[in-house]
Amino acid sequence: MAKSFIVKGNIIFSKSPEELSVNEGSYLVCENGKSAGVFKELPERYANLPMDDFGERLIISGLCDLHLHACQYAFRGTGMDLELLDWLNTQAFPEEARYENLEYAERAYDMFVQELLSGPTTSAVIFATLHRQASLILMEKLEKSGLRSLVGKVNMDRNSPSYLIEETAASLSETEEWIKESARFKKTGPIITPRFTPSCSDTLMEGLGKLQKKYGLPVQSHLSENLDEVEWVKKLCPDCEDYGETYERFGLFGDKSKTVMAHCVYSSESEVARMKRRGVYIAHCPQSNTNLTSGIAPARLYLKEGLNIGLGTDLAGGANTCLFRTMASAVQVSKLRWRLVDKSLPPLSFPEVFYMASLGGGSFFGKVGSFDKDYIFDAVVLDDSGICSPRPMSLSQRLERLMYLGCDGLVTGKYVDGIRLF
Amino acid sequence: MAKSFIVKGNIIFSKSPEELSVNEGSYLVCENGKSAGVFKELPERYANLPMDDFGERLIISGLCDLHLHACQYAFRGTGMDLELLDWLNTQAFPEEARYENLEYAERAYDMFVQELLSGPTTSAVIFATLHRQASLILMEKLEKSGLRSLVGKVNMDRNSPSYLIEETAASLSETEEWIKESARFKKTGPIITPRFTPSCSDTLMEGLGKLQKKYGLPVQSHLSENLDEVEWVKKLCPDCEDYGETYERFGLFGDKSKTVMAHCVYSSESEVARMKRRGVYIAHCPQSNTNLTSGIAPARLYLKEGLNIGLGTDLAGGANTCLFRTMASAVQVSKLRWRLVDKSLPPLSFPEVFYMASLGGGSFFGKVGSFDKDYIFDAVVLDDSGICSPRPMSLSQRLERLMYLGCDGLVTGKYVDGIRLF
Repeated sequence: MAKSFIVKGNIIFSKSPEELSVNEGSYLVCENGKSAGVFKELPERYANLPMDDFGERLIISGLCDLHLHACQYAFRGTGMDLELLDWLNTQAFPEEARYENLEYAERAYDMFVQELLSGPTTSAVIFATLHRQASLILMEKLEKSGLRSLVGKVNMDRNSPSYLIEETAASLSETEEWIKESARFKKTGPIITPRFTPSCSDTLMEGLGKLQKKYGLPVQSHLSENLDEVEWVKKLCPDCEDYGETYERFGLFGDKSKTVMAHCVYSSESEVARMKRRGVYIAHCPQSNTNLTSGIAPARLYLKEGLNIGLGTDLAGGANTCLFRTMASAVQVSKLRWRLVDKSLPPLSFPEVFYMASLGGGSFFGKVGSFDKDYIFDAVVLDDSGICSPRPMSLSQRLERLMYLGCDGLVTGKYVDGIRLF
Repeated sequence: MAKSFIVKGNIIFSKSPEELSVNEGSYLVCENGKSAGVFKELPERYANLPMDDFGERLIISGLCDLHLHACQYAFRGTGMDLELLDWLNTQAFPEEARYENLEYAERAYDMFVQELLSGPTTSAVIFATLHRQASLILMEKLEKSGLRSLVGKVNMDRNSPSYLIEETAASLSETEEWIKESARFKKTGPIITPRFTPSCSDTLMEGLGKLQKKYGLPVQSHLSENLDEVEWVKKLCPDCEDYGETYERFGLFGDKSKTVMAHCVYSSESEVARMKRRGVYIAHCPQSNTNLTSGIAPARLYLKEGLNIGLGTDLAGGANTCLFRTMASAVQVSKLRWRLVDKSLPPLSFPEVFYMASLGGGSFFGKVGSFDKDYIFDAVVLDDSGICSPRPMSLSQRLERLMYLGCDGLVTGKYVDGIRLF
């Protein structure tokens, strides 16, 4: 149960894309699971609360991974020389098919959840597979972990390998059954998950739109990741102005259905306007877009246009579950995009990508991703004392450094919803 | 002293850019500091040699870092939002100036050498600073570490900040003094190091050319890293056909002086031909070229043209001393280059970047970077048993995975020149 307490240390969080709030040796107060704010001197009224003193460690607001495939954990970091279609056919699809075997799902999802728990992520929006039972196994484990998550049982009824495809009616009935069974969870919940337009028939999409409406669920999918894919969707849906409309026409693209779309590397002007108009979230996945040779999404444009944008590791297009490394990749590819593609969009800065990984993505879950007053209390404690330097570094430098060096093994404490997980 | 012994385990090394030699549960024999080859069954004649059995661990040939700045270790991974000139002026130059203080140099180089020792690098070509004494301190520590290295006391007598510049005559006399004092080292040695053409007068370059010839030393510098830099060099040296010629005219560009040039992002056709003709090594530094917004070097072209090419971390333009992460970056930026710049140059593959990090760069030191017979015995033992997967991975997959996940803390054994360092 969420309690009231104080956390003391070097506290860093994002207030906006431009503003990183850096608070040396300060007090962060949690009141009934929510932040009461950060204080240089502890106000008298909190004097009796218990305190966790983390000394010189860094305490950041929890990070949000807006897009990852739990079922691709096994082969992360391998087969990266393959192009997207070969990669799907030899890596992703055969691996996903294994989750029909519940014993395998148990073992694999145990490892995945353990890794997610041990890193800096506190909220995540996750693809499972098309298997209802395995998806529930993943949700059971996430629920127990204490992490905040949304999990999607995947839907796919066309243009998919024979060993990983559903019949339309069964796909919809299994999905509804899964939604009902998910009602027992508190920390995790279901999210409607058409894999992407090419693998979902209109009938399936229409049915998913109805389920979304009936149960008031959020939606996740993929959008404009790859040039060939965008062309394919144009052929499949010639009447749609853009790829985004192929979801919108079934009520699966923002507005009343809170939606996050992964990638948006090649979104057209009309698609960008559509996302903005309907409040669709973009999960920017720079590692994956690089590894799968997709390209570089114009994240700077999305920030400038005021679109909702966060970061996704896109495991296992991305190899790392650590969002710090995704932040570094976001900065890095934005520099290459500026240099090689479009000088009108300046590179992203460290405070901007930290915003995207915390408050930017976190807001998909509500008041999540900041230590400002009344935000849900999610915090991550990082011990970087093992990273050597012959001279002192500022708090901001220490945080930036973690982006480039990674934070494997450095997360020594974690709170979600005002509850300490470790 | 180098001895004769056997190492048993899963042995992987590069035979060429195309061929990765993968040897499950095999025997690698070291005879008097050199490899006698890898054997599936141990030949009778070696039956009496002592054996280190590493079980399921990976054993790779040692890696070579062809370009890094030891003196930039302190601030790695910070200040990355700055562009090159601001970065030099606020990060690199002020830090390098600290090495006038020998107490600082002691402390900082201790940390640097410890980190290099603990990672997968066995050979390195290193920039120190312009300070003779501090450069010798670095060499002392490298010598003791057992690593193989070349270290450059940097020369710079123009276009440099007032607090980090030499007078021409003093620069040359200090350099000769340093070369003489370096004679006592066996594992490390001096390398002639003009910082780069813009910071070295013709008189200085001429003097360095004479020292190179007198002592028969190798040479390192920077080449065609950045568009502004290339333009600047054109103005400084209007008579030269290309940037490479600004070194060549002083005998500092390959042929009789073994030379490695870092970056080569914007080498012209004539410069590429010049490097090929004179056997100049290219230190490809993909992390640094990304972080400093320089661009993407056409590494595929250099490989195709048969140029000598290896990898450099370019600490602290690159943030990591781990060459596995540099390998991943090399693959990643080559994919983006293919996608965004030039479809005629396919992305690099994992065996190709592993070649560059081992045999490609290692050959700068002679018969280094392979386990083929008669190569100098450098080996690195990697324990990846802590990296989870619900199903077994092949040896090749396990090695590729380390590129993407990094190998912090996973190097559990290291041999250089047939001597076990840990």
